[in-house]
Amino acid sequence: MTQLEHAKNNIATPLIKRVARREGVSPKVLLKRLSLGQAVIPKNRLHRFKLPCAIGYGLRTKVNANIGTSPDKSNLAYELKKLKVAVKYGADTVMDLSVGGDLHRIRKEIMAHSPLPVGTVPIYEISVNAQKNKGDLLAFDSDDILNVLEQQAREGVDFFTLHSGITRKSLRALTGSKRILDIVSRGGAILAGWIMRNKMENPFYTNFSRILDIAYKYDVTLSLGDGLRPGSILDATDRAQLAELKTLGELALEARKRNVQVIIEGPGHVPLQQVEENVRLEKKICHGAPFYVLGPLVTDVASGYDHISAAIGGAIAASSGADFLCYVTASEHLRHPLIEDVAEGVIASRIAAHAADVAKGVKSAIEWDKNMSEARKKRDWKKQIKLSIDPDKAKLYRLSSRPRIASVCTMCGEYCSIKLTEECLRA
Amino acid sequence: MTQLEHAKNNIATPLIKRVARREGVSPKVLLKRLSLGQAVIPKNRLHRFKLPCAIGYGLRTKVNANIGTSPDKSNLAYELKKLKVAVKYGADTVMDLSVGGDLHRIRKEIMAHSPLPVGTVPIYEISVNAQKNKGDLLAFDSDDILNVLEQQAREGVDFFTLHSGITRKSLRALTGSKRILDIVSRGGAILAGWIMRNKMENPFYTNFSRILDIAYKYDVTLSLGDGLRPGSILDATDRAQLAELKTLGELALEARKRNVQVIIEGPGHVPLQQVEENVRLEKKICHGAPFYVLGPLVTDVASGYDHISAAIGGAIAASSGADFLCYVTASEHLRHPLIEDVAEGVIASRIAAHAADVAKGVKSAIEWDKNMSEARKKRDWKKQIKLSIDPDKAKLYRLSSRPRIASVCTMCGEYCSIKLTEECLRA
Repeated sequence: MTQLEHAKNNIATPLIKRVARREGVSPKVLLKRLSLGQAVIPKNRLHRFKLPCAIGYGLRTKVNANIGTSPDKSNLAYELKKLKVAVKYGADTVMDLSVGGDLHRIRKEIMAHSPLPVGTVPIYEISVNAQKNKGDLLAFDSDDILNVLEQQAREGVDFFTLHSGITRKSLRALTGSKRILDIVSRGGAILAGWIMRNKMENPFYTNFSRILDIAYKYDVTLSLGDGLRPGSILDATDRAQLAELKTLGELALEARKRNVQVIIEGPGHVPLQQVEENVRLEKKICHGAPFYVLGPLVTDVASGYDHISAAIGGAIAASSGADFLCYVTASEHLRHPLIEDVAEGVIASRIAAHAADVAKGVKSAIEWDKNMSEARKKRDWKKQIKLSIDPDKAKLYRLSSRPRIASVCTMCGEYCSIKLTEECLRA
Repeated sequence: MTQLEHAKNNIATPLIKRVARREGVSPKVLLKRLSLGQAVIPKNRLHRFKLPCAIGYGLRTKVNANIGTSPDKSNLAYELKKLKVAVKYGADTVMDLSVGGDLHRIRKEIMAHSPLPVGTVPIYEISVNAQKNKGDLLAFDSDDILNVLEQQAREGVDFFTLHSGITRKSLRALTGSKRILDIVSRGGAILAGWIMRNKMENPFYTNFSRILDIAYKYDVTLSLGDGLRPGSILDATDRAQLAELKTLGELALEARKRNVQVIIEGPGHVPLQQVEENVRLEKKICHGAPFYVLGPLVTDVASGYDHISAAIGGAIAASSGADFLCYVTASEHLRHPLIEDVAEGVIASRIAAHAADVAKGVKSAIEWDKNMSEARKKRDWKKQIKLSIDPDKAKLYRLSSRPRIASVCTMCGEYCSIKLTEECLRA
């Protein structure tokens, strides 16, 4: 039985109990949300790892870090360092998005080293195989797809991004639209190419039932990808995006019926004033399934600082009900990310997730800010550093600039408002 | 006559015409907003500088960068470099918050080098003088205050932060409260100390009419400071904060009557879900006066990354109607900021301001994103770099990681979704 099946039968498995403890909710509450499909535990039954989590309604907002090789940058050791950094800075999950080098070996190593759930986008391996074997990245068929899914599931991948919603119908909505940037999803573009060339329906859509068999067998969580997500804020929330979302909602119901856990992926590039609406639409159209957003980026012009643009969008999305934030790095739109981009990207997303958790009333989140504020009042620098989201950086900054008066900082010196207030107001 | 007086008399001065052009609105529209006190042009009649701007309703959101020395870090040349960097990265105003070294000389140099409006917090010089001359930073009286205001106005300072709202009444609201961090405003703490020690009312409150005389004479814009702003998200929107805001609203009306331009300063540390409400309250209580927010920071735990926390809060605030964002640097709560902190702080706030401008429907803002998206579609890297918020960084990242296929980037290589889509979808 899958975890969803257990939840529907009101059975608190050891995994469910363990995750409930980590999340600070009762097993009963978690069972309820799992059974309704409002929360998922992405964990392949064959994958053992240290830090399983739940993602969904009423739980702490989770952060995913994408790692993986590209055709131009394919160094396994470097990607494993990125994994380490993502874990260190508090990512809850990682995705291996490799499309360069020996994909099988890279995935195996990432799986072996990760204490977190690992996700993949199987169409990448399918397409890379086609390119390698047939010199044509679109030369794959349904069997190739199912074989790769079965193989990756057997290796223990915890969640799959599948672009099952990019159908002939949603492509018609796209080609009839005035979009600036048609498709900005790698997987979406590959599938759109396949559909256009073969004049056939998306094999991830037509084979969905067989895909559910595989997902059920290994308890792989499906993350239904948004191949038609907007790549410009001017394209957001358009017909093509909503047509795909509708299909994802139907597929989500089908998966739930078959006891397969499912989450829904979302944009992308969304202007600030449409972020809340995007969350509301997903929750409605996809029957309350957890929402996994990529950013969203609230402007297209922040190249070099897209982690900040994503933090703004992510905080608003999560406070509006999005459950899972995929980080965006400062290298987005410019280059394959470096290790420092991964660190900064995870931290920016965690700030967004945490700010949203405070807004959502997550107790442990509010407690953290309270403890920090109390340390600040006492000018307890050791504790302030310890409670910072990145203690290493806080310590570095503090030590780089020594004040004459040890209890203050070099910003204000003896004009420190907290020191002055302590001396005068409460005297 | 002050600019406000001209506006009330429906006279479009050369300055008003020039600023209207820069803001992309008609002089008529700007005159109306100025006359109602919904917008201000911070410009001392004796100060000549290149880039005057208007701040307020319906205009592009403005960004302020704080620079200036501290008792521990007092290097004029370094502060002038910060000024240069703030201008380069697109700040609209700067404030000289110096409290270390020769304040008069530092201010004079910053004024001479700035192409932007310059603001100060005169209580700093008043208090530093008291410390220097009497060994007691609270040893000042009304004459000392008015003398410094007159002197700084004569030097051409464009806007003053005055903590006129921290009164005996609002301090009672504070001492009776359960705040974690009582006062985190430097000026607020000095004035609270003065009030408590002398058992007298705030001299910036009791002398407000004489202060208006000075402001009127030189057309200095008053920025009414929030000495009781929350320093912890758990303290936000409390009685003390609102008691002070009420007083500021009354003083704003008085200033307007006397033809003195006025803006209102706001928090500070505010949890995400209260940001919009804070803007709404200010606009209501302060009769539509422009709102100048410090951040706000949506969490207390982001030491080392407070520019990101401020970008989240600032974007939400500005999209809710705040008009003017004061940047917060990554050094906040830890040390006196370095030049690189100033650069990153200005950029983070500009991303927030721009995202909000898109949401508010500012045409030039939307056009910028459109142009970037079109460059992205064409994979026109030169144009993408030029249109980035920080072209230097975008160029550096792009050049640091050369793809085999020149038209894509090293993130995806031949799997570039835009390239694939161009080849397949629109073929």
